[in-house]
Amino acid sequence: MPARRTFLDAGGRSPVSARTVQALNAGIADGWADPTRLTSEARQSRALLDGARGAIADVLGVSVENVHFAHSVPMAFERLLRATYAARRGRDRIVVSAIEREAVIDVADFIANGAVDRVQVDPQGHIDLAALADYVGHPATAIAAVQHANHEIGTIQRLDDVHAITSAAGVPLVVDATASLGHVEPPSHWDALVADPADWGAPAGLAVVAIRPQTRWLEAWPDGDDPWAPGGVSVPLALASAVALQERMESLTSEGQRQFDLVSRIRNDMSRMEGVHIVGDAVERLPHLVTAAFLYLDGEPLVSRLDREGFSVGSGSACGKSQFQPSQVLAAMGALTHGNVRIGLHPGVSDDDVERFIATMPRVIEGVRGSMASDE
Amino acid sequence: MPARRTFLDAGGRSPVSARTVQALNAGIADGWADPTRLTSEARQSRALLDGARGAIADVLGVSVENVHFAHSVPMAFERLLRATYAARRGRDRIVVSAIEREAVIDVADFIANGAVDRVQVDPQGHIDLAALADYVGHPATAIAAVQHANHEIGTIQRLDDVHAITSAAGVPLVVDATASLGHVEPPSHWDALVADPADWGAPAGLAVVAIRPQTRWLEAWPDGDDPWAPGGVSVPLALASAVALQERMESLTSEGQRQFDLVSRIRNDMSRMEGVHIVGDAVERLPHLVTAAFLYLDGEPLVSRLDREGFSVGSGSACGKSQFQPSQVLAAMGALTHGNVRIGLHPGVSDDDVERFIATMPRVIEGVRGSMASDE
Repeated sequence: MPARRTFLDAGGRSPVSARTVQALNAGIADGWADPTRLTSEARQSRALLDGARGAIADVLGVSVENVHFAHSVPMAFERLLRATYAARRGRDRIVVSAIEREAVIDVADFIANGAVDRVQVDPQGHIDLAALADYVGHPATAIAAVQHANHEIGTIQRLDDVHAITSAAGVPLVVDATASLGHVEPPSHWDALVADPADWGAPAGLAVVAIRPQTRWLEAWPDGDDPWAPGGVSVPLALASAVALQERMESLTSEGQRQFDLVSRIRNDMSRMEGVHIVGDAVERLPHLVTAAFLYLDGEPLVSRLDREGFSVGSGSACGKSQFQPSQVLAAMGALTHGNVRIGLHPGVSDDDVERFIATMPRVIEGVRGSMASDE
Repeated sequence: MPARRTFLDAGGRSPVSARTVQALNAGIADGWADPTRLTSEARQSRALLDGARGAIADVLGVSVENVHFAHSVPMAFERLLRATYAARRGRDRIVVSAIEREAVIDVADFIANGAVDRVQVDPQGHIDLAALADYVGHPATAIAAVQHANHEIGTIQRLDDVHAITSAAGVPLVVDATASLGHVEPPSHWDALVADPADWGAPAGLAVVAIRPQTRWLEAWPDGDDPWAPGGVSVPLALASAVALQERMESLTSEGQRQFDLVSRIRNDMSRMEGVHIVGDAVERLPHLVTAAFLYLDGEPLVSRLDREGFSVGSGSACGKSQFQPSQVLAAMGALTHGNVRIGLHPGVSDDDVERFIATMPRVIEGVRGSMASDE
């Protein structure tokens, strides 16, 4: 392993900042007790947990009672889709964009027993609004799930238009903000929402569910326990999640602009490399993510060679089950799906790191090309 | 709040040791990456996670592949009961002891749609073996759930006898070891098992599922994700859980004996107080737990007054949904259920703390008696 490693796979997880580690340790010291109990220690724990919920609620622009913790992103979608689906009795279909996370599509398939309508996207990754209107207008449609931004290609959906359509049809809109919260201004057009603290630099182990008071849902869990996280969640992780989000929000404009410019640089330079195609909207996008599709190269050797050069990047279906199966997102966009590499920046990545990465890519591509040729 | 506080509610949670905090921080530094991915950082994270599973597997006397993490104790039971129940197609009943945790009974009710047989216990809390044999002999019985030790009264079940009966009937035995692992020698008679790291001094936020290779189960989760913890678990919490367990196992004999003797002292002294009844087996019991039932006093004022005196204790149904509803455990044992107080020791509780607690009790009882009399 080279002495200096550069982590460019910051979509979903990134190194934890000193301030967040400090919050975690404060949470261990003062929030180890069970917040549902009656002792002084428990009250202190509960105050920390509610404080964490409140801080995240502030960022989302809702009240503390609209924000809950779940155990993980898939569990959050499972609970939320099941609960909102159950409240729409008599309707049994779920509408999703074709480029939702696999966690969303798999859970929707599971809950609706396969009755899932996928709305196609254009070559930039924007959802087909006319098709969405058709699908949500169907009387059997229970709920719709559309992401705020895509976790592979970074394209940001026009949720104002999306929500206008779902609202007109009376269909609750569940928004996946797991790739966007902490990176861009929070979305405001949603009926329920899921976010991922690990994506904004908190330690993994929690997810956030927000649900507007007017959004109906039914509990699908044994009576009496927390329906969003049966058995409760780690208070220290909740506290660390809130502090990490505050830290990101404080530098959202400056750090966001820096990352946006670095990604523009990567997009420009890599799209000039032979057989490389940059996917997604160049402007309406997340600041920190970019996916490059390779015309003739496999993803696995690209990732391995970059790893040996000291760069960690993502590949394949970045948040999918198997990392080298063709990306469903790219397939849905009609993009190349041979090999692809996702680069995700975080605040610890310097401008110089990105320069070195760009300078290394041609050598890596050449090496993979050479070894593939010698295999034939 | 008095300057010195003594936490005597250590059933389920207790303060986290310095060594465990150190493990947690090592996990944040080296295990922040997603262990399912392909980068060097991910491999390091995966190694830490597998190491944690392996260390816990060693304590349980099984291989690493038989041990999994779940998100919480109720989630562990939900997954495990559902998965083992699903594998017994055509059988639809679940047998439980009458003094199982509410998390077990509620989940069993939910999964089996109410077809749950409760096996009564004797006045010491031991399960009626003849009744158990009758119930598991029923051809419709899918699975049985019996705890290793009770979380309120501390009674340890004779699992060798229990397992002989369930095995003879061909019914998988799910053992709740959430109150016992880390306090006494691990049970060896089980087909599947749930344990609770927070109960042995780790930070809360995980549970452990162990399942023997010959125990059949079916997945009840969208294809491809971890069936025990969809979306994965916190690697730092897993590491801290393993280290906390090792720490407890190292001092199991000495610290166990110290706590056993202190609890004997509490049992003897409190049972001499007027209107106080000590519940559960005096010998075959957990070293650190004791419940005192009060003939004429409510639990709430007892807990509040003790809290003001600087002592945190549990009350009501210690691990139940509502802390002041009558304890199902005590009700099932035919014991008093008016007010009750559970005391749980942890390594940070000194002999002197226990002396002070015993010396304080008469004054607290007198005070509650006085205020209840003046209310009338």
